[in-house]
Amino acid sequence: MKFHILTLFPAMFDGPLTESILRRAVESGLVEFSLHNIRDHAVDRHHTTDDAPYGGGAGMVMKVEPLVACIEAVREKSSVVRVILTTPRGKPLDQQLARELAREEELVIICGRYEGVDERVRELTGAEEVSLGDFVLTGGEIAAMAIVDAVSRLVPGVLGSEESAEADSFSDGLLEYPQYTRPAEFRGLQVPEVLLSGNHLEIARWRRRRAVEKTFRERPDLLATAHLSAEDRKYLEELAEAIQR
Amino acid sequence: MKFHILTLFPAMFDGPLTESILRRAVESGLVEFSLHNIRDHAVDRHHTTDDAPYGGGAGMVMKVEPLVACIEAVREKSSVVRVILTTPRGKPLDQQLARELAREEELVIICGRYEGVDERVRELTGAEEVSLGDFVLTGGEIAAMAIVDAVSRLVPGVLGSEESAEADSFSDGLLEYPQYTRPAEFRGLQVPEVLLSGNHLEIARWRRRRAVEKTFRERPDLLATAHLSAEDRKYLEELAEAIQR
Repeated sequence: MKFHILTLFPAMFDGPLTESILRRAVESGLVEFSLHNIRDHAVDRHHTTDDAPYGGGAGMVMKVEPLVACIEAVREKSSVVRVILTTPRGKPLDQQLARELAREEELVIICGRYEGVDERVRELTGAEEVSLGDFVLTGGEIAAMAIVDAVSRLVPGVLGSEESAEADSFSDGLLEYPQYTRPAEFRGLQVPEVLLSGNHLEIARWRRRRAVEKTFRERPDLLATAHLSAEDRKYLEELAEAIQR
Repeated sequence: MKFHILTLFPAMFDGPLTESILRRAVESGLVEFSLHNIRDHAVDRHHTTDDAPYGGGAGMVMKVEPLVACIEAVREKSSVVRVILTTPRGKPLDQQLARELAREEELVIICGRYEGVDERVRELTGAEEVSLGDFVLTGGEIAAMAIVDAVSRLVPGVLGSEESAEADSFSDGLLEYPQYTRPAEFRGLQVPEVLLSGNHLEIARWRRRRAVEKTFRERPDLLATAHLSAEDRKYLEELAEAIQR
């Protein structure tokens, strides 16, 4: 899978794309990055990429011509279908969107500067607005990194068998159960006994209950769309009753 | 404001912290970063920082001793109160949490690896679990960058008068209105006339309606907590009626 990243600050990607799992994915040829400096597509001799907003107000707005030219240059040499524009106005990234994007062969991500991007960029390129969440960043670069990371790890082969994406949070719509590793006791805190029991059925049951409980307490909004078994539902009723008592 | 970042991959922060607005914030002394390599606090001679999960399953879990030792080393030399642990199990970052964190003098952010962190870290250090959103990253580093960026720009003085944080998305609970800059026409697409009118009252009214409309169409969930005027509510009724027709 190939990511085309359109940015005014390509150097921001130095560390994030060259470490850890992403570095390994690039080395094994599963993931490829191409950084495009939007400034190279500016049309005037001052290489202007932003200008004051029509109608007044604070901040600068990214100009339409350099962005459209940059996207068209990428499209000429590639099979890109989807173009993502990072902006707090967008659809929040979630695991389902990450899975969907991981099926693309190539993807363009435009790093908006958050003072704004000329609205016509979206109209002319069909860019989909994607947000990380309900907070504001100084620019879209970190949002682009998050999209690249969340999507790359779902590309088949990127995660080793060691790191299966199956048991992740959100894979069935629940928050993950708590994890423990050695030592069995640390400063008086013990690992829950069931995890040392070797009884796989009991362990699976305990973990499922902890996942349901964590979601119930911290993110009850997720329960509406989670994949819940009859046993999960029964346990949820018990939790709800316990609170009312 | 000082950020202590606890990570196994300090090199990932090379680009993100040394460019753009964050670089300027560091140079002007408003923001300071301290990267702590968790591996330096491993307690065995192999510098082990993770181990297999108790109870079995894929992935490795970050060990409790190095993390607790690292946090205690930071606390000895600082006035840190709040410790953040990045994990998809956490409370989703939003603009309100960013504002709250921007009032701290120092902040510790632990970059979890997302296979999991020993649950006892949270119990022993009081770490608050924070998530970027309902998606899974290979590690907490990019989440930490997002937190640092979203919080830093709210520290007084970091944004210049050019880039006021006032008109941002979410500052009043709505998505931002569309922005335009020169040229007034590009490939047949015109800037909305009202923005060229110079009538500030009309411009403000148009922008407010576009913000309400965008939020209504894309993120109606935000309307429940947005700060809406009587005129906003009337316009929302009109939008809802137009859809039913």
